[in-house]
Amino acid sequence: MPRDSTATRTRILDAATAEFAEFGLAGARVDRLAERAGANKQLIYAYFGSKEALFDATLQRHIEQLLDAVPFNAYDLPAYAIAMFDFGIEHPQLLRLLRWHMLERPGELARLEQTIGSTARKVAALAEAQAAGRVDNTLPPGELLAVVLGIIQAIDDPTPEALAVRRESVAAAVRRLVTPAD
Amino acid sequence: MPRDSTATRTRILDAATAEFAEFGLAGARVDRLAERAGANKQLIYAYFGSKEALFDATLQRHIEQLLDAVPFNAYDLPAYAIAMFDFGIEHPQLLRLLRWHMLERPGELARLEQTIGSTARKVAALAEAQAAGRVDNTLPPGELLAVVLGIIQAIDDPTPEALAVRRESVAAAVRRLVTPAD
Repeated sequence: MPRDSTATRTRILDAATAEFAEFGLAGARVDRLAERAGANKQLIYAYFGSKEALFDATLQRHIEQLLDAVPFNAYDLPAYAIAMFDFGIEHPQLLRLLRWHMLERPGELARLEQTIGSTARKVAALAEAQAAGRVDNTLPPGELLAVVLGIIQAIDDPTPEALAVRRESVAAAVRRLVTPAD
Repeated sequence: MPRDSTATRTRILDAATAEFAEFGLAGARVDRLAERAGANKQLIYAYFGSKEALFDATLQRHIEQLLDAVPFNAYDLPAYAIAMFDFGIEHPQLLRLLRWHMLERPGELARLEQTIGSTARKVAALAEAQAAGRVDNTLPPGELLAVVLGIIQAIDDPTPEALAVRRESVAAAVRRLVTPAD
């Protein structure tokens, strides 16, 4: 692909990230998106095929960052949970993109090859930490991971004070879940 | 309001619930909604003012059910969590409506009078259970409630087997959180 074409694709994907994060798949308008990208609407369809395919390409572009920007540490899940919480606060656009995707493309995220690989690595690390007696084994490792991710959910339109309190609560809750029972 | 007008409003709100649950605020189309309701598009605007106001009216209509359909029991949070989990599975449309609302009207839900009242009652009951030593007091009561609600999140496009496993995990995780430390 010639260099200017790559640059145009990148510009379209950046504009698509902003447009989809704000309005979701159904609410996004390709003509508004084209204007944001400074690109021709027909070119967008030529590159990506459809609004739906562009939506998927946008998530695909950010999925690795969403899954693995925060290094996973099975032996210190409270620290991992706090780092993920902070990542969500610092990247509200990526978080919104993920939430739209779960509403408008149910099941797609779990089917992505990156999600499957990343989850499998985390679950294997947790199983090892459980086998070593370092992490409580009441829950199967995949379930423990899902529960921790549920706890991390950001707050709806929070104040800085509410965020600081929730950050502490996330760490305390996860600590209670993973500390092995005597 | 004459009876037929009340019936028409109800029909519009039912159609709006279906339309918004499927497409969200930005993606909903008032003409499609009017067709679902068998009502005139102009009449919808006359009754509700705007698509945004109709979206809010739709949540308003279901908010009490969403908040209080499951009786809150501060002394048995694992059972409450399972009942809420089951409610979400049985009412996927209401859950989607709530999620769209959080994406497209951030902060609105927390500002609703019903949410404020319902949350205050739950937090007071939890504080009492903590003071009685029946619920662990590591987390402030409002934070414990938020963490439990995070754990209940339904799974993205689940199989029946995955749901059954998650249901058990929700109960086990909440039990660990609320059991007082010795």
